[in-house]
Amino acid sequence: MLLRLYRSVVVRLPQAIRVKSTPLRLCIQACSTNDSLKPQHPSLTFSDDNSRTRRWKVMGTLLGLGAVLVYHEQRCRASQESPRMYSKEDVRSHNNPKTGVWVTLGSEVFDVTKFVDLHPGGPSKLMLAAGGPLEPFWALYAVHNQPHVRELLAEYKIGELNPEDSMSPSLEASDPYADDPIRHPALRINSQRPFNAEPPPELLTEGYITPNPIFFTRNHLPVPNLDPHTYRLHVVGAPGGQSLSLSLDDLHKFPKHEVTVTLQCAGNRRSEMSKVKEVKGLEWRTGAISTARWAGARLCDVLAQAGHRLCDSEAHVCFEGLDSDPTGTAYGASIPLARAMDPEAEVLLAYEMNGQPLPRDHGFPVRVVVPGVVGARHVKWLGRVSVESEESYSHWQRRDYKGFSPSVDWDTVNFDLAPSIQELPIQSAITQPQDGAIVESGEVTIKGYAWSGGGRAVIRVDVSVDGGLTWQEAELEGEEQRPRKAWAWRIWQLKAQVPAEQKELNIICKAVDDSYNVQPDTVAPIWNLRGVLSNAWHRVHVQVVP
Amino acid sequence: MLLRLYRSVVVRLPQAIRVKSTPLRLCIQACSTNDSLKPQHPSLTFSDDNSRTRRWKVMGTLLGLGAVLVYHEQRCRASQESPRMYSKEDVRSHNNPKTGVWVTLGSEVFDVTKFVDLHPGGPSKLMLAAGGPLEPFWALYAVHNQPHVRELLAEYKIGELNPEDSMSPSLEASDPYADDPIRHPALRINSQRPFNAEPPPELLTEGYITPNPIFFTRNHLPVPNLDPHTYRLHVVGAPGGQSLSLSLDDLHKFPKHEVTVTLQCAGNRRSEMSKVKEVKGLEWRTGAISTARWAGARLCDVLAQAGHRLCDSEAHVCFEGLDSDPTGTAYGASIPLARAMDPEAEVLLAYEMNGQPLPRDHGFPVRVVVPGVVGARHVKWLGRVSVESEESYSHWQRRDYKGFSPSVDWDTVNFDLAPSIQELPIQSAITQPQDGAIVESGEVTIKGYAWSGGGRAVIRVDVSVDGGLTWQEAELEGEEQRPRKAWAWRIWQLKAQVPAEQKELNIICKAVDDSYNVQPDTVAPIWNLRGVLSNAWHRVHVQVVP
Repeated sequence: MLLRLYRSVVVRLPQAIRVKSTPLRLCIQACSTNDSLKPQHPSLTFSDDNSRTRRWKVMGTLLGLGAVLVYHEQRCRASQESPRMYSKEDVRSHNNPKTGVWVTLGSEVFDVTKFVDLHPGGPSKLMLAAGGPLEPFWALYAVHNQPHVRELLAEYKIGELNPEDSMSPSLEASDPYADDPIRHPALRINSQRPFNAEPPPELLTEGYITPNPIFFTRNHLPVPNLDPHTYRLHVVGAPGGQSLSLSLDDLHKFPKHEVTVTLQCAGNRRSEMSKVKEVKGLEWRTGAISTARWAGARLCDVLAQAGHRLCDSEAHVCFEGLDSDPTGTAYGASIPLARAMDPEAEVLLAYEMNGQPLPRDHGFPVRVVVPGVVGARHVKWLGRVSVESEESYSHWQRRDYKGFSPSVDWDTVNFDLAPSIQELPIQSAITQPQDGAIVESGEVTIKGYAWSGGGRAVIRVDVSVDGGLTWQEAELEGEEQRPRKAWAWRIWQLKAQVPAEQKELNIICKAVDDSYNVQPDTVAPIWNLRGVLSNAWHRVHVQVVP
Repeated sequence: MLLRLYRSVVVRLPQAIRVKSTPLRLCIQACSTNDSLKPQHPSLTFSDDNSRTRRWKVMGTLLGLGAVLVYHEQRCRASQESPRMYSKEDVRSHNNPKTGVWVTLGSEVFDVTKFVDLHPGGPSKLMLAAGGPLEPFWALYAVHNQPHVRELLAEYKIGELNPEDSMSPSLEASDPYADDPIRHPALRINSQRPFNAEPPPELLTEGYITPNPIFFTRNHLPVPNLDPHTYRLHVVGAPGGQSLSLSLDDLHKFPKHEVTVTLQCAGNRRSEMSKVKEVKGLEWRTGAISTARWAGARLCDVLAQAGHRLCDSEAHVCFEGLDSDPTGTAYGASIPLARAMDPEAEVLLAYEMNGQPLPRDHGFPVRVVVPGVVGARHVKWLGRVSVESEESYSHWQRRDYKGFSPSVDWDTVNFDLAPSIQELPIQSAITQPQDGAIVESGEVTIKGYAWSGGGRAVIRVDVSVDGGLTWQEAELEGEEQRPRKAWAWRIWQLKAQVPAEQKELNIICKAVDDSYNVQPDTVAPIWNLRGVLSNAWHRVHVQVVP
């Protein structure tokens, strides 16, 4: 059966969507993009039915990230014989070269073991889909949506999925996380509840903009399921000013401001720190960082409407999320008023991410985006904004997300003595090749990202393939950075010449920002009990084959 | 003979100065503070006689830094016998414990060899004056100006200076540097022509504010000798605005703005970098950094009067000094217009330094002060300000003061590829004990400074006495830093317990700023051909005696 796929561009959802409700229609169960099942503009009519039932029903017809896959019944070349049937478990167990590499597309099952090494994008990227559906990956990378790709794939077909495997998994209503959205299968999960996951290195630097479905996700609590019709943002007014209760429509009436911003979790690369000594926190690898084009109202405009002005005394803008724990305590954080009121700092109350409404995992319908500042202050599912003389009293502002000396342990730590993390330091990491990989001698492509906080531009990335004895400058790709407003990362690349007699490479990267800050050489001297701010040189060791 | 010393406070010169022109009047030849011989307010009457003759004549009566030493003839306890006479050369040759330690005060000569170890401020500070006059040091540290100190000193008197040794040294008129001011003898000279010198570590962190006479001096050319009456600052007007020609009086009419700012040369600590591999530049140790209270007109106010406004396109404010080389080329530099026009950035056209008119070595009558930015942009002897679409074409903006990868050498360097240094990275250094010192076991006081560019505050200094295996947090002293405006350094101190069996200490310091930027561990990976931005961990090795 030849499938015809219609897929829109990633950032734009067609206003009219043709849906054929046939048995062959795909049910993409393992995709994070169920959010985009909602209409793409908050100003459009929303269904009041937010129930899971409706979500699962609609989910069968649309595939997120603005992409749509519509399967038409067509002549099927394989239909001449009765197809062999497989369960999803059968497919899942074929996820490496030893067992064979199986994937699915729609209801069809393919054994692509022999194709893995022929994959034009490289074996590692195809292997991300091993044992599961191709759709979430094809949705990200439009290049697959061509007749010759589908014809090629058809040659590897070995059968079909059992019909019952298209059904949704059962959910337990008592689980506070039961209503969490479905996520993209490529995400590397560090914690399921609350959900915390990062894109794999192979995809992280595939593009300058991180597609929404694989944007790293850092949740502290269950994901709220908010009705955009009844959603209101409460902004506490200044003395003499007025408090605001803003609907999504109200927020859209403020001038729309767009900015490309890299978000990084304070715990990015914590796994390297925990190798030095145990730390408390999720084992993020190099992927707790992603970049999106955000749009929304500027916080300074909204605060001004509530009567707030910049003042000489110390003040902070406190944010409260609508996510909360069983005691009703919401996630909260704050930033200095000076940053919030500075139009040049471009702090947003964002309602769009890469041209789409925010996905639920990223704060639907409204989140804060604070360019150049640690992710923890970009409060999602924003419910309340107020201006206070002190920082937020939230646990995450006062008892977490702070840096300490390596000498401080849980017996001696005094959280009051360290400032809350706001701007982050210079950072870079290698995404290709990965640690432990085997590379061929000759020209080896080394790739990664570099970013600095506070709007400081990345001016150079030095790469060593000999453990730091000698250095070469990488080529900086992606968009040029604006002075003082370098909110987004640079992707970088170096093609290194590796002689055939070389047995291994100790690859290191280190970046420099436009204040000429550099990364520290080693992890141990910046070790801290929470494992935050892990920005030592990134090192990978690879074997070389002639 | 008992001397009575009248000494004003360091930052204020009395309006009326009593001068007794007697043979006993001191002639302080080796003091950097001849600048303060000029009246202290540009609005006062100035002599048109700027000749060297006048300078030397007046110098005999006043001792700089606003300090005045007036010697009255009094009964002299030593006058009962005819004193033994010494030449300055005799004194100079007694500058270490082996030869004996001699010093002079006025015309009297003292052998203080036996007092060195008893010096309350520590032997090392007294040794700075060994073989020379005490006055420049007593002028800095008012604690000496007490009867019991002078009585104590009298006990060590061994004779008097030959009268001819009070005469000024001969100067060669053909030397373009012949008119340079006289400097404080405590300065460690890295280059005499142009004059480049740093305060010794013993004095650098003695106070939060660096006294003018020992403030590090970085000159690129001979020091101009400018007449404050005829001085004019030319400010090129914006299109539609008007160009300005500002006298000192005119500058004083702008609102006076005061700010405490640390200046650091890009080459501070270069001497550590040149140990890795040869670099081009002066061998600065840890002292190319100092802190003063500056006052002047805000650059943004002056630019606004000339019709300049912040614009969206890239623009730079270019500064030209009135110092120039034989071809007439002046020193020049530039900063981004956005910084210049930001009132919060507090960029000054400074005419006061620690409550006094600028000393000649520091830009008399007007210099630029750019808080948080490398010293090279703080143009001295300011003659011209203009707003341009590109950075200054000065050699020092485009072909110097830039950072490069360690892999770049003089054959491969392309200065166009690196941004000019503006904000400096996090920095710290140990000033006490010094490398190679011998310390006693028990409690060892470790002291130093820490500073970061761009207004980023120092939030922590970690100190190790075991080469980096373990760390202790130093105590931060000096003034609290303002958020986003931490323009001045923190002095820090740690009292470390050193057991008697310890043979040596490998002391390290590393600082953290409020963007959580840290210093790199080692020098080699940040080595660059110009030896700038040397901010690796500072390390000193000391011997321990029980």
